[in-house]
Amino acid sequence: MRPSGRANEATREITLTRGFTRHAEGSVLVACGDTQVLCTASVEAGVPRWLRGKGQGWITAEYGMLPRATHTRGGREAARGKQGGRTIEIQRLIGRSLRAAVDLKKLGEFTITIDCDVLQADGGTRTAAITGGCVALVDAMRYLQRDKKITTDPLRGLVSAVSVGIFQGQAVTDLDYAEDSRADTDMNVVMSEDGGIIEVQGTAEKQAFSRAELNAMMEMAENGCAHLFARQREALGIAS
Amino acid sequence: MRPSGRANEATREITLTRGFTRHAEGSVLVACGDTQVLCTASVEAGVPRWLRGKGQGWITAEYGMLPRATHTRGGREAARGKQGGRTIEIQRLIGRSLRAAVDLKKLGEFTITIDCDVLQADGGTRTAAITGGCVALVDAMRYLQRDKKITTDPLRGLVSAVSVGIFQGQAVTDLDYAEDSRADTDMNVVMSEDGGIIEVQGTAEKQAFSRAELNAMMEMAENGCAHLFARQREALGIAS
Amino acid sequence: MRPSGRANEATREITLTRGFTRHAEGSVLVACGDTQVLCTASVEAGVPRWLRGKGQGWITAEYGMLPRATHTRGGREAARGKQGGRTIEIQRLIGRSLRAAVDLKKLGEFTITIDCDVLQADGGTRTAAITGGCVALVDAMRYLQRDKKITTDPLRGLVSAVSVGIFQGQAVTDLDYAEDSRADTDMNVVMSEDGGIIEVQGTAEKQAFSRAELNAMMEMAENGCAHLFARQREALGIAS
Amino acid sequence: MRPSGRANEATREITLTRGFTRHAEGSVLVACGDTQVLCTASVEAGVPRWLRGKGQGWITAEYGMLPRATHTRGGREAARGKQGGRTIEIQRLIGRSLRAAVDLKKLGEFTITIDCDVLQADGGTRTAAITGGCVALVDAMRYLQRDKKITTDPLRGLVSAVSVGIFQGQAVTDLDYAEDSRADTDMNVVMSEDGGIIEVQGTAEKQAFSRAELNAMMEMAENGCAHLFARQREALGIAS
Amino acid sequence: MRPSGRANEATREITLTRGFTRHAEGSVLVACGDTQVLCTASVEAGVPRWLRGKGQGWITAEYGMLPRATHTRGGREAARGKQGGRTIEIQRLIGRSLRAAVDLKKLGEFTITIDCDVLQADGGTRTAAITGGCVALVDAMRYLQRDKKITTDPLRGLVSAVSVGIFQGQAVTDLDYAEDSRADTDMNVVMSEDGGIIEVQGTAEKQAFSRAELNAMMEMAENGCAHLFARQREALGIAS
Amino acid sequence: MRPSGRANEATREITLTRGFTRHAEGSVLVACGDTQVLCTASVEAGVPRWLRGKGQGWITAEYGMLPRATHTRGGREAARGKQGGRTIEIQRLIGRSLRAAVDLKKLGEFTITIDCDVLQADGGTRTAAITGGCVALVDAMRYLQRDKKITTDPLRGLVSAVSVGIFQGQAVTDLDYAEDSRADTDMNVVMSEDGGIIEVQGTAEKQAFSRAELNAMMEMAENGCAHLFARQREALGIAS
Repeated sequence: MRPSGRANEATREITLTRGFTRHAEGSVLVACGDTQVLCTASVEAGVPRWLRGKGQGWITAEYGMLPRATHTRGGREAARGKQGGRTIEIQRLIGRSLRAAVDLKKLGEFTITIDCDVLQADGGTRTAAITGGCVALVDAMRYLQRDKKITTDPLRGLVSAVSVGIFQGQAVTDLDYAEDSRADTDMNVVMSEDGGIIEVQGTAEKQAFSRAELNAMMEMAENGCAHLFARQREALGIAS
Repeated sequence: MRPSGRANEATREITLTRGFTRHAEGSVLVACGDTQVLCTASVEAGVPRWLRGKGQGWITAEYGMLPRATHTRGGREAARGKQGGRTIEIQRLIGRSLRAAVDLKKLGEFTITIDCDVLQADGGTRTAAITGGCVALVDAMRYLQRDKKITTDPLRGLVSAVSVGIFQGQAVTDLDYAEDSRADTDMNVVMSEDGGIIEVQGTAEKQAFSRAELNAMMEMAENGCAHLFARQREALGIAS
Repeated sequence: MRPSGRANEATREITLTRGFTRHAEGSVLVACGDTQVLCTASVEAGVPRWLRGKGQGWITAEYGMLPRATHTRGGREAARGKQGGRTIEIQRLIGRSLRAAVDLKKLGEFTITIDCDVLQADGGTRTAAITGGCVALVDAMRYLQRDKKITTDPLRGLVSAVSVGIFQGQAVTDLDYAEDSRADTDMNVVMSEDGGIIEVQGTAEKQAFSRAELNAMMEMAENGCAHLFARQREALGIAS
Repeated sequence: MRPSGRANEATREITLTRGFTRHAEGSVLVACGDTQVLCTASVEAGVPRWLRGKGQGWITAEYGMLPRATHTRGGREAARGKQGGRTIEIQRLIGRSLRAAVDLKKLGEFTITIDCDVLQADGGTRTAAITGGCVALVDAMRYLQRDKKITTDPLRGLVSAVSVGIFQGQAVTDLDYAEDSRADTDMNVVMSEDGGIIEVQGTAEKQAFSRAELNAMMEMAENGCAHLFARQREALGIAS
Repeated sequence: MRPSGRANEATREITLTRGFTRHAEGSVLVACGDTQVLCTASVEAGVPRWLRGKGQGWITAEYGMLPRATHTRGGREAARGKQGGRTIEIQRLIGRSLRAAVDLKKLGEFTITIDCDVLQADGGTRTAAITGGCVALVDAMRYLQRDKKITTDPLRGLVSAVSVGIFQGQAVTDLDYAEDSRADTDMNVVMSEDGGIIEVQGTAEKQAFSRAELNAMMEMAENGCAHLFARQREALGIAS
Repeated sequence: MRPSGRANEATREITLTRGFTRHAEGSVLVACGDTQVLCTASVEAGVPRWLRGKGQGWITAEYGMLPRATHTRGGREAARGKQGGRTIEIQRLIGRSLRAAVDLKKLGEFTITIDCDVLQADGGTRTAAITGGCVALVDAMRYLQRDKKITTDPLRGLVSAVSVGIFQGQAVTDLDYAEDSRADTDMNVVMSEDGGIIEVQGTAEKQAFSRAELNAMMEMAENGCAHLFARQREALGIAS
């Protein structure tokens, strides 16, 4: 029995609120149960130095957690003078995942930065950030088209992410903190809209997992992402 | 005529939403027009090293702005590896101001950290942070009393803050960004509930101001803070 | 009775020694009682990146305290790898104040950096730095004119600063450390030669202050600055 | 056809030289083709603060690359003043993986730090570091037993790691730099001696991969790790 | 002919002003020609962690240059967030040299920090810092004895330092900036009062030097230091 | 009697293995007894900003020690976020010494970086780094000539370095750690192939040394370096 009482394959309620703040070209508050992440997409002309003159754009991501998004207050990274290893690991994952959604050549020499700031954490912040960040990214690319800065849509397809795991010997999906902190295995899966796998990161927290368990988790991830794509399309007004 | 069309003495609509996030002992979203600041108050047992054994508590504040809270994206301070001068100046002001609200002896050896994170900026973020942070602080001190960790109420009185300025030769109150960026003088005033002045910081951005203008601004600040105290009491369920 | 035995409105003896070191375009040792600050003004061609091509100059300030300028040794900021919050707050104040003395358009694309290094501290180091730094700044602008690098005098008027406060219920001026550390309120006022207010920063250290006290302190600040302008003009050989 | 001419399932020659340097409790040079990583295991009494008094030990890892381990010189992280995101991501993976090899309770309050320094890089440095680091770790735990500092063997089982990927549409194993830099998918798999999966990190560098490709890669990873366990046992003098 | 017109063996006028600032236990302004260094000695109870419980004291030094001590302004190290390599090299030299003057056992568990801040630079700042720092150090140790914190004098003997070099093929002593910047060899020599050598650091800036030149420079250094010891004793009121 | 049993003038066995790693233009493993340093020379087009347009090249060095190169593990500098004072002191020495081997005008606008990473330490790492680094540097300059990037050989002559010291009252050469940690004086001497002195750094660790001792050490250094030049020439295939 899961702490939340959910069925093994049940995901939490997810809401994607577009236009949550008004300055960013894309601004989405994603709430997945009690996890709340504000994802903004900011467009800037130009690309990093190492990409200049290659006729392509760039997507990058930054991740942060407000100090009291969690049960006990964590130190503010800006005050400590460096981002922690977990933060860096996560923001690299988000950036790689969202780049997979975009044809960088069609984006042209623009950089879109996806800022994912966790207002409240209850497990699955990185997967929520990818799912919500993708919607903010689409809004930013729509802005570029509306503004005639680019002429074709750089979107290759949506990208979403879900966490799966082995909890008390069973595969479960969309773990909240109560589960996550006691799971045997925790795995984050990022998928593309056409069913391809973009990233798999599975970690045996307590004991190694088997190929069969990997398969069971992948199965759940596919279902979970299918659900998320529907919610993303709904939020963006895209017909399925 | 002010850009917003407001009368010189008119403040913006302010809302103070308590319990905005669920982990912190106090959590208030303060919205002052389009400025939105999430203020959380976190209680930790113990005090900084230099205060140990003195039988008193400590209140400190940290301030941050989400990278895209503003018109153009600002660099993430955690990624740059240091807090900017403006950030440091502001968080010191918030900390000093809120300490004035509390009898630190009565607080006992607890530290309350007020995190003020700007979700959206439209002028007056530091004053909103003080006004909202004070409500979060009260909630945290109520938690300590409810939990029997302290037996008397450490609150000496509420504290609120408002910005005033000289815009096109006239004193105005609660400047938004459009005004603030073009004002001749910008002044932040922090007051105590009994009408005392806790902090005054006035800067002639374009040209020096006179004693008469200082008086006119102080007058407006007193009125503005009186209004804010009413809203704080309302939010906290304190009879006036 | 003030610790120093001075009358409430009495300032300390101030000396402004020009040419204290020989490399800088302006170099002034300002001694205000036992407070000694070395202010140098350094001219460099060019302006910061964000000002380029706007046909104007820039004035900036940096502040530091020698580790043993104080009663007990403070850590060296260069060794700790960052400037403290107090240092940053002060150098921003000095920079803003001195920019008010200058018509940046007339300065042309030059940057003048005012370094204020405290050799010995006894209260009022930031106000001494502004008063002394202004004299060093004038020397640097005279150098630019003498060298035919600019053709008109960019000086809009002198700027000076004084600290005032409430000590044992009475307004006093030019607080030394013994007073400053026990004052109820501490306020720094920066004024322009024509009597305008450039900056006011008042902090209730122990208890809130009233409008009447604010007025009494402003009165003293005006007198104090008038005295300082006379000493600046004397040092610079300017007829009153 | 792979750039190296190897068959898809063929791994590179691996050598594990124990006692490569003489000060560390475990010191292994692992060479996997042209990739050379020096792995040292250092034993220190005590554990990090957050583990004290829990009666268990700790395993942690640090990773670095000599500036000219690569085709073009990379900046020295110590000189730049921070470890890069890739470094941090890798050393966290190594630490997690090696902790899975050890019963931390049996280790007692000792910390073993595995330093993995890449002398020469040709793809697969992180997997080589795990495979070599595990041998150094065993040597360090043997030292603790030999020295009577602990009485039972904390080793739960060996751990090894291999990279697999999709190169020109086919699953391949143990990618060198020429392949790695052009692969569609790159996946690192860490396994336990009894066939369990400890960590899977797969990234679609160019295009998403399918469940079938994931399975093909996992198959190869199992074979690759089986081969590595044999070489680890051989190096350590453990009968299969 | 030397730029200054001095004879090869002639040193510059040196003055050692004790009590230059009033808070430090020792405070000496050393002026050697146009080079001016403020050396303060600060006493603190206790020793660094790695020395605790060994019944001995510690002497350490820090060095800094005011930004405009030189012909062109150098960046402030505190603002850049790190001390430069030259600074670190110099302060390590000063610390080692001054420790040679003291019997650390007799000092007891006190730390004396010598801060050497260059107000004006004209060559030879590190040697001036050692010579002046030694006088400040003696004052601090006299303070400890006067205050009955230690009962025996920890001074083993004075220490002084001089720069020598090869300029246009000839050995010269006490180089100023004009010479130093064009010298073939620059050598700093630290000596003890009884004629022993404490430190020699010679660098061939332009071309290698011979054993004969080394000897000629050492000869001059001995004479130079003898002169400095006389001035130190004079300043300290020690009979020769 | 020296701990190693060596005669006072006896150096340790030295080996210089060229081509130790394959990516760098020069790569030398220098082993001097148990001290092992990997020296790589990396060629990059261009020079630092302050040298641009002067038609000359630049040689710079960086030094690092693997965390467990020593008896007890030292913290990784990259993880601590800064290079230690000793590291900075050493890499400045290596850079200065190797620049003396090269005619920078003939090198043209190339920068050669010598990375010296200590794999195992047993005294004399900085002198081994200079001796080995010089061989790597020659290889890099040969590469530039072979590649027709420069047309004349920039080598002015080889440079080597040896440590000498006073151990139990006697001059000794090439100290290992057991000696070095107990020596009265430790001196590093860098020489040019034609017998000139490039750098002398002598430190009285325990007691001051005399002119006679300085001479005895210099004598030994000359012999030691002569021996090293023979080994360098041998390694490089240069006839004596």
